[in-house]
Amino acid sequence: MTCTTDSLAEDMRALFGRDRASQAFGMRLLEVAPGRATLAMNVRADMVNGHDICHGGCIFALADSAFAFACNAGRPVTVAAGAAIDYLRPARLGEELVAVALERSRSRRTGLYDVTVQNAAGELVAMFRGRSHQLDGR
Amino acid sequence: MTCTTDSLAEDMRALFGRDRASQAFGMRLLEVAPGRATLAMNVRADMVNGHDICHGGCIFALADSAFAFACNAGRPVTVAAGAAIDYLRPARLGEELVAVALERSRSRRTGLYDVTVQNAAGELVAMFRGRSHQLDGR
Amino acid sequence: MTCTTDSLAEDMRALFGRDRASQAFGMRLLEVAPGRATLAMNVRADMVNGHDICHGGCIFALADSAFAFACNAGRPVTVAAGAAIDYLRPARLGEELVAVALERSRSRRTGLYDVTVQNAAGELVAMFRGRSHQLDGR
Amino acid sequence: MTCTTDSLAEDMRALFGRDRASQAFGMRLLEVAPGRATLAMNVRADMVNGHDICHGGCIFALADSAFAFACNAGRPVTVAAGAAIDYLRPARLGEELVAVALERSRSRRTGLYDVTVQNAAGELVAMFRGRSHQLDGR
Repeated sequence: MTCTTDSLAEDMRALFGRDRASQAFGMRLLEVAPGRATLAMNVRADMVNGHDICHGGCIFALADSAFAFACNAGRPVTVAAGAAIDYLRPARLGEELVAVALERSRSRRTGLYDVTVQNAAGELVAMFRGRSHQLDGR
Repeated sequence: MTCTTDSLAEDMRALFGRDRASQAFGMRLLEVAPGRATLAMNVRADMVNGHDICHGGCIFALADSAFAFACNAGRPVTVAAGAAIDYLRPARLGEELVAVALERSRSRRTGLYDVTVQNAAGELVAMFRGRSHQLDGR
Repeated sequence: MTCTTDSLAEDMRALFGRDRASQAFGMRLLEVAPGRATLAMNVRADMVNGHDICHGGCIFALADSAFAFACNAGRPVTVAAGAAIDYLRPARLGEELVAVALERSRSRRTGLYDVTVQNAAGELVAMFRGRSHQLDGR
Repeated sequence: MTCTTDSLAEDMRALFGRDRASQAFGMRLLEVAPGRATLAMNVRADMVNGHDICHGGCIFALADSAFAFACNAGRPVTVAAGAAIDYLRPARLGEELVAVALERSRSRRTGLYDVTVQNAAGELVAMFRGRSHQLDGR
């Protein structure tokens, strides 16, 4: 994992360590910085649906985790308020997907993040836009 | 599982049987009819994130599966083109979530579906709106 | 205009009176209650685009105004944080459109509203979902 | 107006000439190329709402027009299937808003476009994401 500072790297490792969902999906945290995160995930046999393509929820989950790391890195505790996803091409069993999250806007309490999900060929699989909400008093 | 006809019930059982992702999430198909589906899922230990609440991607996956069954029931093969979700309250470890998907509009090639996700107390956890796309020649 | 109470009717008439944009679009406030509003608008010659159908922005504006009245009726000052719209069929010159906004969720600071836009034949023209944000200290 | 070729400029002037809605909003087409368009609009007195800020529908309309020009430039007739907008800061009476639309993805029948709306200080007023649908047989 690449981080801008050692203490951020430590915080993010701890956050990832507590994030059992992202671990259960087999996600890997490749890079994180305030407002930015990159995660990878392989499409496993337990992630495909009845049409033999990756379940949209698993693609969404990858994007959502990248979004969560981007908005929590070096910041007060921030949660997702909502998100939208557009699926551009299917992802198949065995493919490695990489999600890159970037902060587009951040005010006192809310933020807007764009996440792209690409396959190994560098083709866009999905585009995700997430809205964050910063919790009080932390 | 409740179905409007026996043959639809059989088709849906077969579709669910091939849908390894929904099974891996522990989802249960409670009811399905053309344009309508109800699924349940329990928030397991491998679905919570670093803030000890259910990962948004898992809530999204439940809604997305309900959407998929509602738009494929008694219909040509239909896939998700995109979706948006709004999170209204957190879901916690052990809670049972129920997603109800309803068709709001369907034209020749596209459809629009609303899904609500509720907890056992009947409180809204999330609202989801999905857009479907019917594949050619099937 | 139908209102649940006389004082609400007066407040809403005052709010509509200050809302020069909704008036410029020729919107008519048909009914308003806390969490609910109905507005009508005719598609005028200055609302059609290069394809001879109503500009999506004008349909959006009608839905957005219905949303604004539904979330401000009998409530502290509330503004739109964002919205999504799906266009289901075109609206043509001269058609009367009716937007009905309904509150789906409301917490201390945020709310979620669904708006449907129909033509005179009762066909769905668009579905809109808006997110509101309540301002501080009012 | 800046265009990549003279014939595209002529087509776009013709399309803008037929687009009475964009003209009624006082929009100005500053630049257009396949997959890209820039439009400007001043917030007029007939565009403000009861809170004395620009009606969200007018900001949306500007973004929607930029989106329409970006997806029709040098392309078969394309219409909007839907869009989402996030409002980041209010726009006030007299401010000049500039919308820049960029194509992010385009397949045979559908496309995805991002539009940013900025004020004269270069601050983000809104972010918009539109989905296009290409009509048959043209």
